[in-house]
Amino acid sequence: MPQTPYQQLEMEFKRLHALRGAASLLRWDAAVMMPRGSVEQRGEQLAVIETVSHSVLTAPKIARLLERATANANGMNDWQLANLRCMRRELDHAIAIPNALITRMAKATSIAESKWRDAKKANDFALFAPHLEEVLKLTRDRSQILGQALHLDPYDALIDEFSPGLTSAVIDQVFALLSQRLPALIQQAIEKQATETVLPLTAEITVVKQRALSVALMKVMGFPFDQGRLDESDHPFTGGVSGDVRITTRFDVNDVLSGMMGVLHETGHAMYSQGLPVDYRGQPVGNDAGMAIHESQSLLVEMFIGRSRPFACYLQSLLGSTLNVTGAEWDAENIYRALTRVKRSAIRVNADELTYPAHIMLRYELERELLVGNIKVKDLPEVWNVQMQSRLNVTPANDADGCLQDIHWSVGAFGYFPSYAIGAVMAAQLMEHLRNDCPTLDDDIAAGQFTTLFSWLRQYIHSVGNKVNASELIQEITNRPLTAAAWLRYVENKYLE
Amino acid sequence: MPQTPYQQLEMEFKRLHALRGAASLLRWDAAVMMPRGSVEQRGEQLAVIETVSHSVLTAPKIARLLERATANANGMNDWQLANLRCMRRELDHAIAIPNALITRMAKATSIAESKWRDAKKANDFALFAPHLEEVLKLTRDRSQILGQALHLDPYDALIDEFSPGLTSAVIDQVFALLSQRLPALIQQAIEKQATETVLPLTAEITVVKQRALSVALMKVMGFPFDQGRLDESDHPFTGGVSGDVRITTRFDVNDVLSGMMGVLHETGHAMYSQGLPVDYRGQPVGNDAGMAIHESQSLLVEMFIGRSRPFACYLQSLLGSTLNVTGAEWDAENIYRALTRVKRSAIRVNADELTYPAHIMLRYELERELLVGNIKVKDLPEVWNVQMQSRLNVTPANDADGCLQDIHWSVGAFGYFPSYAIGAVMAAQLMEHLRNDCPTLDDDIAAGQFTTLFSWLRQYIHSVGNKVNASELIQEITNRPLTAAAWLRYVENKYLE
Repeated sequence: MPQTPYQQLEMEFKRLHALRGAASLLRWDAAVMMPRGSVEQRGEQLAVIETVSHSVLTAPKIARLLERATANANGMNDWQLANLRCMRRELDHAIAIPNALITRMAKATSIAESKWRDAKKANDFALFAPHLEEVLKLTRDRSQILGQALHLDPYDALIDEFSPGLTSAVIDQVFALLSQRLPALIQQAIEKQATETVLPLTAEITVVKQRALSVALMKVMGFPFDQGRLDESDHPFTGGVSGDVRITTRFDVNDVLSGMMGVLHETGHAMYSQGLPVDYRGQPVGNDAGMAIHESQSLLVEMFIGRSRPFACYLQSLLGSTLNVTGAEWDAENIYRALTRVKRSAIRVNADELTYPAHIMLRYELERELLVGNIKVKDLPEVWNVQMQSRLNVTPANDADGCLQDIHWSVGAFGYFPSYAIGAVMAAQLMEHLRNDCPTLDDDIAAGQFTTLFSWLRQYIHSVGNKVNASELIQEITNRPLTAAAWLRYVENKYLE
Repeated sequence: MPQTPYQQLEMEFKRLHALRGAASLLRWDAAVMMPRGSVEQRGEQLAVIETVSHSVLTAPKIARLLERATANANGMNDWQLANLRCMRRELDHAIAIPNALITRMAKATSIAESKWRDAKKANDFALFAPHLEEVLKLTRDRSQILGQALHLDPYDALIDEFSPGLTSAVIDQVFALLSQRLPALIQQAIEKQATETVLPLTAEITVVKQRALSVALMKVMGFPFDQGRLDESDHPFTGGVSGDVRITTRFDVNDVLSGMMGVLHETGHAMYSQGLPVDYRGQPVGNDAGMAIHESQSLLVEMFIGRSRPFACYLQSLLGSTLNVTGAEWDAENIYRALTRVKRSAIRVNADELTYPAHIMLRYELERELLVGNIKVKDLPEVWNVQMQSRLNVTPANDADGCLQDIHWSVGAFGYFPSYAIGAVMAAQLMEHLRNDCPTLDDDIAAGQFTTLFSWLRQYIHSVGNKVNASELIQEITNRPLTAAAWLRYVENKYLE
C-alpha cells in the first residue's frame, strides 16, 4: 500500500528515534556500567550514531516530504498536525548549522570538557580559559546562525534548543521578581530556622538497604520496573527512552535522605518519560516538551512533595518499619526540618530550594554577558565571585568551587541553566492547581498513597507530550502565563509560616 | 592531506566497527540489564543499526575503493594486504544476498525464535514445525545464492559465514575419525569411572562469594577489568568488543564449580578478544578468525586447563583459602573427578567433553540432510531420537529435551554447530604444541600461574587476529592440517589413563 508523505515521515522519525534511543542507552552504559578503558571506543560509537542520525534528519527527502505533507494536511487530527510542527522545528534546528561548525564544535567541546575536569581538579582557571574562549566563540557563531534561521534573538535560539518556546523576555520577568524578593526571603528563613533545633540523622544504613528502600519507594509511586531500572552513578541522572527509563542515584551510608531525595528527583523525571503518549512513541510529538517542564516534574516530586510535612510523616513510618530506626531524630518534624534547611553555599548542586534560584540567576546573567562580549573570559573568576557575594553573601573558597564548578559551559550548553529555575517556577504554578483539583493530596501523601498526584500529572502534563510547548501548557492548565508569583507564595508559606 | 583509497577504506570500516560495537553493547544490555518491557524497542534499535551497517558496507563507494586499493597494493605491508582480503570477503558476503531476502529472513527468524520458545516450553514440536520449515526454505535459498557468489558448495557457504575457510570436506574427515572411535571410548571411560568414587561437593556458597571468587580467578588469569566486566545472565556468553569485553555466567549456590567453569569458558573467549591486535582494532584484519578458533580458545581454558589435575590442585588451595571449605570432597583428586565425569545425556549443554562431539555430529548430519531435503521437518523428532539412540544410547524424554533443545535453527544459524566440535579438535592440536613449547605448564597451572599459558596463546593466536584464516593458522603453528588425532590422544590419555 503506497504511503502518504505523512506516513513516510513517521517512518523516518521512527528510525531517528531508534538511533537516538540506542545512543541514549550507550550514554547510560558509559555512566553506569562501562569499564574505564573503553571511553574512546564509546566516543567513536556515539559519534557515528550521531552523524547517522543527523544525516537521516537532514536528508533532502525529509524536507520534501514535510512540504508535501503540510500541503496535504486536510483531514489530519490535532496530534498529526502538532507532529508536523515538531518535525519542522527539529529540521529547522538541524539544517541551520553548517556541518563544518558542528564538527568544530564537537572537537572544541570534547577538548574543553576534558580540560575543565583537569582545571577543576587543579583549581586552575587558566588551564580552562583558552578552551572556554574557543567554545564561547563557536557558540556565539552558532547562536547567530541559529537565531537568523529561526527568527529569534541569538540567545533565545540557544534557549529554544533546550526548552522550545521559552524566551529571555519571559525569563527576565520571572527573574526580576525573584531578584527583588529573594534576598530578604533567604535572610528571614535563615533567621527563623536559627531558632529551631534539628537533630542529626546519624544512623549508618548500608547501600543494600538504601537500595531496597528506594526500589520500594519507586514502586509505591508507580514506577514500572518492567520498563526501567534504578542504578548508581557519580551524578544522579535519568537516561534511556520512554518504555526503558533508567534512573541513577548516589547512596551515602551516613545520609539515608540524600540518596532518597536523588531517587525522588529522578523518579519525577522518569514518571514524565514513562507517561508520554504511547501512541506517539517514537514521533517528535510524543517526546517531552523540553528541559524546563522536565525539571518542573523532578522538582515537583523532590521539593514540593518529597520535602513536605506530609511526606516527612510518611517517611517516619516507612523508615521506622523498614530500617528499624528509632529516636526523636526520626520524628516527622525533625525529618522535615532536615529536608528543608536553608543555608547559603557557594556550590549550586548543594543548594537548598530557596537559595537555588540565586545560583541560576548568576549563571544566566554571566552567560548572556559572555556571549555578547560584555564580560571577558579572563575576568570570569572575579566577576563570578563578586556576583556570588552580592547575591548570596558568600565568596567561593577558590575557583574550583566558583566559576569552575559546573560542566555546562565546557560542553557548549549555554541557554540550559535557566531551565532549572524556570522548572521550579512552573512546578509551583502547576502545584497550586493540582492542590485545588485534589483536596486530599496532603492526606494521601502522608499515607504513602501517590496515585492522586501522578494521575493528575499524567493527565495534564505527561500524556500531552510535545503537542503544545511548555509555556502554552502552563497557560492552558493554569489559565495564566508563567509567573514567579506562585513560587514566591509557595516558599513564603513553607519557609516563613 | 588527500587519503589513499586504502586509507579511505580503513575509515569506512572503522565506522562499521563502531556501529557493530554499538549493536553488540545493545545485545549485551538486552541479555543482562534490560527490563523485560523493552524487548520491542530494543529490536527496533538493533534493526535500524543493522540496516545502517549493511548500507555502509554495501555502498558502491566501498566496491570502487576496494578495486582501486587492490590495483595500488604495491608497498602495502602484510597486514594491509590481509586487511584488503578480509574487506573483500565481508563485502562479497554482504552483497551476495538480495535485500528482500535479508528482510524476509529477519522477519521469519524473529517469529520462528519466539515460536521455538513457546514450543519448547509446551513440548509441542507441531507449534514450531511450520516456522522452522519457512526458515529452512529461506536458508536453502540463501545458501544457494551465497554458494554461487563465493564459488562454494551451498552448505560450505553457510559454514564460511561463521568460520572462514572451514569446509565440510575437512569436517567430514574429522568427524569420520571421531565417529569411528568415540562410542568405544565413551563406553570404556564410563566403565573405568564406575570403579571410582566421587564425593558430592555439597557446600552452599552464596552468589556474592562465588562472584568474588570468579573475579579473583579472572584477575589471576590476566583479564583486564578496566576493559571488561563479569555479570550474570540466563545463558553464559561473551559480548562487547575488543577493549570492552563483557562475559556472563550463571551461579548456582549449590554448585560452585558450574558457575566457575562458565567463567573459565567465557574467559577463554574474552582473552582472545582482548588479545586481538590493537593496531588493527576496528579493521576486519583485527577481528578474530571465526567461531571455530574462538571456541578452541574457550574450550582450551575450560576443558584442557580448567578440568585438569594441575588446575584441580590449584582449586583445592584457592577454595580452601577463600571459602574455608574443608573435607575429603575438596581434595584435588575429588575435584578433578567431579570435573571430568562422563555421562551420556540427551542434552547438549549438559554434556561432558567426551560425549559432546556426538551431539554435534548428530546436528551436523541432520542440518545437512534438512537443507538438501533428505529429511522433512515433520520427521525431525523421530529422526533425532533414532540418531540420539544410535550415537549415545539415550532417548530424549520428550521433544523439548530432543530436537527442540537448541535455539540455533530457529534463528537460521545453520552451519554453526560444527564450530563447537572443530574448536575442541583445534584446541587439542594447539595444546600439544603449547605443552611442547612450555614444559613448566602443569606446574605453573597448579601454582595458579597463568602467564605461561596466555603468553603463548597471545603470541601464536590472539595477536594474529584475522590475518590468516583458522585452518591456515593451525597449519602454521602445528605444521600439519587439522586432524582429530590430537584430540583422540588427549581424551584417551585423560579418560583411560
